[in-house]
Amino acid sequence: MDIEKVNSMDFGEFVDVFGNVIERCPLIAAAVWSQRPFSDLEDLKKHFFAFIDALPQSGQEGILRCHPDLAGSELRRGTLTAESQREQSAAGLTSLGADERLRLAELNAQYRARFGFPFVLAARFSDRAEVSRELARRLLCPSAQELRTALGEVKKIGSLRLADLLCADPAKL
Amino acid sequence: MDIEKVNSMDFGEFVDVFGNVIERCPLIAAAVWSQRPFSDLEDLKKHFFAFIDALPQSGQEGILRCHPDLAGSELRRGTLTAESQREQSAAGLTSLGADERLRLAELNAQYRARFGFPFVLAARFSDRAEVSRELARRLLCPSAQELRTALGEVKKIGSLRLADLLCADPAKL
Repeated sequence: MDIEKVNSMDFGEFVDVFGNVIERCPLIAAAVWSQRPFSDLEDLKKHFFAFIDALPQSGQEGILRCHPDLAGSELRRGTLTAESQREQSAAGLTSLGADERLRLAELNAQYRARFGFPFVLAARFSDRAEVSRELARRLLCPSAQELRTALGEVKKIGSLRLADLLCADPAKL
Repeated sequence: MDIEKVNSMDFGEFVDVFGNVIERCPLIAAAVWSQRPFSDLEDLKKHFFAFIDALPQSGQEGILRCHPDLAGSELRRGTLTAESQREQSAAGLTSLGADERLRLAELNAQYRARFGFPFVLAARFSDRAEVSRELARRLLCPSAQELRTALGEVKKIGSLRLADLLCADPAKL
């Protein structure tokens, strides 16, 4: 898909295509449509990120709370979004042993209790061992720093999803 | 459900229960959770509305763009949210004749083209004749006024959905 195609979309098409660039937040894609036309992928990305950055802290936490746990109950129940399902599969989280699953569930629960949002990581860049390690490490970070780190992961995920949709080379992002 | 029950919810439960108070915008419920504890239904409502009011105009338009058309393609395809389905049924929009459906589809298309968001109305308060009349009337309003009117309807819908969830008397809202 090229940028002319993107710029020609009405808001219904745009939200259908880009509604899950930020997980379960079609509101953000729907808001970004107001900023068209876009000059290129970079410009489109810039508007998604600017919307996130301009939200009050409660809204930024809200974005995180719309994300599923990694290797959590939604993966087991099969209710993940198509994008999350692919990303969690790529990190090997769909084929964990019982011990690993339990260990991750415990860490996820501790993380949610400590920060008030779920652990978010651009899983496509990771393998299962790294996911656990990174979760254990970030669990110890100060809250304000962790909010920034988590939003950075939301943006990495969004960049990769946008690149998929526009068939761009992720190495150039 | 009483307010103590609401205040005892973790964010996962809260988003499950209140995620569609604002149509297809779980981000807003997820953000409102940051403001707990709530003193009562009125207080809970106040936080939902304050979040909407604090958004930039693109975000407010984004909320509207997450709403389905009344008597539109989503009703035909059966992909409405449960809440929208009930509200559109209550207004008699599920049993329109072919002529009425066509007339509404034309008006909806004109409205979307003019304002860049769909026509939103708290349908539960209306019957099918009023929906058409109101749509034809609002189609002629200035854009800035219409954005305010449409957001007022989003809040009416949200108030009614919150009252349903807390089993409150809508007359007292």
